[in-house]
Amino acid sequence: MKRAVVLLSGGLDSATTLAIAKNDGYEIFALSFEYGQRHGIEVDSAKQIGQSLGLREHRIAEIDLRTFGGSALTGAIDVPKYRSDTEMAGEIPVTYIPARNTIFLSYALAWAETIGARDIFIGVNALDYSGYPDCRTEFIEQFEQLANLGTKAGVSGERFQIHAPLIAMTKVEIIRRGSELGVDFSLTHSCYDPAPDGAACGECDSCRLRLRGFRDAGIKDPIRYAY
Amino acid sequence: MKRAVVLLSGGLDSATTLAIAKNDGYEIFALSFEYGQRHGIEVDSAKQIGQSLGLREHRIAEIDLRTFGGSALTGAIDVPKYRSDTEMAGEIPVTYIPARNTIFLSYALAWAETIGARDIFIGVNALDYSGYPDCRTEFIEQFEQLANLGTKAGVSGERFQIHAPLIAMTKVEIIRRGSELGVDFSLTHSCYDPAPDGAACGECDSCRLRLRGFRDAGIKDPIRYAY
Repeated sequence: MKRAVVLLSGGLDSATTLAIAKNDGYEIFALSFEYGQRHGIEVDSAKQIGQSLGLREHRIAEIDLRTFGGSALTGAIDVPKYRSDTEMAGEIPVTYIPARNTIFLSYALAWAETIGARDIFIGVNALDYSGYPDCRTEFIEQFEQLANLGTKAGVSGERFQIHAPLIAMTKVEIIRRGSELGVDFSLTHSCYDPAPDGAACGECDSCRLRLRGFRDAGIKDPIRYAY
Repeated sequence: MKRAVVLLSGGLDSATTLAIAKNDGYEIFALSFEYGQRHGIEVDSAKQIGQSLGLREHRIAEIDLRTFGGSALTGAIDVPKYRSDTEMAGEIPVTYIPARNTIFLSYALAWAETIGARDIFIGVNALDYSGYPDCRTEFIEQFEQLANLGTKAGVSGERFQIHAPLIAMTKVEIIRRGSELGVDFSLTHSCYDPAPDGAACGECDSCRLRLRGFRDAGIKDPIRYAY
């Protein structure tokens, strides 16, 4: 059975990505990160999603928070609420974390090479997160080239492949695909700024994209919101 | 004063790289890693080198050892001794660590973006370490492209530059340059497999390259060897 390393954040995108990798026949090695996010809910969600979908191994790597200064997601800046589509489509958001996906993919690559996996899955999406430079096709392709230049396996003629199956999908399409593949969305977590009891705020960019996606997909979002 | 992030391992190559960056007029932010190396001497050396050469900040990031399975440098395999030049020039050595420089550069990139540095220095060398895929010019150039695609600063038109000033130098040239720039080589550490008291083994690839370099440079190697 071919092995794949899947980056699993606890959100609905990475949960759907894991389900796609499983459906493609891979044995799953999921990788999550603890990096001083505002809340610990993400990693708990990732663990539950991993258990519910089934995997060979789930590893949680810790990354020093201070490496990622200056992002709303690590607590340095307030999470913006109720932004319009125009605002969301504009500049790179304050929730951008410096070089995050570069670090995540680097860890995935190291682990993949170690366990003999040549396939890495990441749930980035270029439509909803057009502001993030490291969620674009060009970035993913560039990382794939780097992986094949900078590793023993790569230069030995084996090819690493970075799969980003959601990259060109809309949120509606992602939710429908996840639903078909049996993702339990009640376990997923998207909110940038949840209440102390874990309820999603419903107001940040991530909640708004999620809520609209479920509405347009005609599927009920099973998670709890604060209002 | 322009800021630079310098990857500092405690070896003579990275010490010389730091001295070059300082000589080029940068304010130095040194970054070292604790990643379950066989011995803790590397990080102690890095700290002392940083203090002796002078820097603005020195950060030690911890990386989960298990990410890097299957290398002699993380203890999974024996360090080879007394290898001939032909053997050293041959295959990728067992001291190769999966995706190590990709991870190190990713952290450097995240920190650089956070502190407003656009220059990253790494002491890789393509001649002595020709077996390591992530010590080659192609790899460094590829990472630079990735840095400029995958970060806010990069896509905003600022350019990250990855400096690898030693990449085409011989060990003799590196030692002479370091010596000119005042590197205290007694603080540097190169051995893959030191004795419990810290003495270098003199027998591993790294010791042999170092010893030959000092001999050919006509400079005395001030560190202690086990024999």
